[in-house]
Amino acid sequence: MVFPSLLIENAVNELSRLPGIGKKTALRLVLHLLKQDEATVDRLAESVSRMRHEIRFCRICHNISDGEVCSICSNPRRKQDQICVVENIRDLFAIENTQQFNGVYHVLGGLISPLDGIGPEQLQIRSLLDRVSGSGVSEVIMAISPTVEGDTTIFYISKKLQDSGIKLTTIARGIAFGGELEYADEMTLARSLSNRLPLDRYVGEGNG
Amino acid sequence: MVFPSLLIENAVNELSRLPGIGKKTALRLVLHLLKQDEATVDRLAESVSRMRHEIRFCRICHNISDGEVCSICSNPRRKQDQICVVENIRDLFAIENTQQFNGVYHVLGGLISPLDGIGPEQLQIRSLLDRVSGSGVSEVIMAISPTVEGDTTIFYISKKLQDSGIKLTTIARGIAFGGELEYADEMTLARSLSNRLPLDRYVGEGNG
Repeated sequence: MVFPSLLIENAVNELSRLPGIGKKTALRLVLHLLKQDEATVDRLAESVSRMRHEIRFCRICHNISDGEVCSICSNPRRKQDQICVVENIRDLFAIENTQQFNGVYHVLGGLISPLDGIGPEQLQIRSLLDRVSGSGVSEVIMAISPTVEGDTTIFYISKKLQDSGIKLTTIARGIAFGGELEYADEMTLARSLSNRLPLDRYVGEGNG
Repeated sequence: MVFPSLLIENAVNELSRLPGIGKKTALRLVLHLLKQDEATVDRLAESVSRMRHEIRFCRICHNISDGEVCSICSNPRRKQDQICVVENIRDLFAIENTQQFNGVYHVLGGLISPLDGIGPEQLQIRSLLDRVSGSGVSEVIMAISPTVEGDTTIFYISKKLQDSGIKLTTIARGIAFGGELEYADEMTLARSLSNRLPLDRYVGEGNG
């Protein structure tokens, strides 16, 4: 693309570095921004820049945070003894948005993946074990995607915690709501069958 | 959505005001930006802000410009006597990207649309007529979308210029390359038929 303005060209190039945004979309955004007030555009630019400069990570759970401890860890109405272990902040957000979980989190920052050179020491696993040991944690919930890396990570953590006496659970794997049984892969269907629930619990879930 | 950080929430809200970007996409962009260097994020923020503050509009053709006159109008290798009239900057970019046009432009800033309260005086039509009169312009090409508003605008401008002796043309309407004849609307097909070309010109175009 040829641009009649270097200013536009720069802005398009910077925006098109974002994931999922190509040159055409970037140009559309730029032309949209040109029609806005200067104050509106500055507010956008400043909010993005400030976020990057001022963001911190919670020293307890490694969630993003405005202060030293995030708003979830510092919330007295959340069960501090129930820790939900997640791969990344996006998964944390996904669980938060269900509004079904009232405990706290621990963000690993990835999954164990020997092929990619990621071992337990590259992740926040040591800090999870430190956090669990000694404190009155009653349950650790593994909310990790059911992939090879996910299962490896769950296995590693559960090995480390097996003698702690803490209840270890994992989120249920199975056929998604609205999912078609015939299109489910064999592994999911097999697990879903072996982990079958009494019907009264299912009805309770459906109504709750 | 509930956010554990006000900084994130602000950035997501600002980004999701952009066209085609919802809260989920905005969050994805924000989490991506959090993983980048501070310098990278600042470069993005600054390029957007600077563009809005420093952009100017060419006093000749009303294209966006870094200076008083845009790079197209000030380019001595472009035919200054051939003016292509377009609705907006996006259409100008589309034509520039074909690399087939070597004249200059005139950006109207919209189309005549009485229903929306847009008359000729809201558009850069007066400046087009001023520009054309007296100078040695040889051709005015209407590169306007074939809509009701587009045709109204073309009709208005051509009325004003009919006594000027300047050659007035419009881009060809017809079946798009790769378009299926049977799915074309009647108007397009009818115009395409009445404006049929000698076969040797078509072959020339296809090869050119």
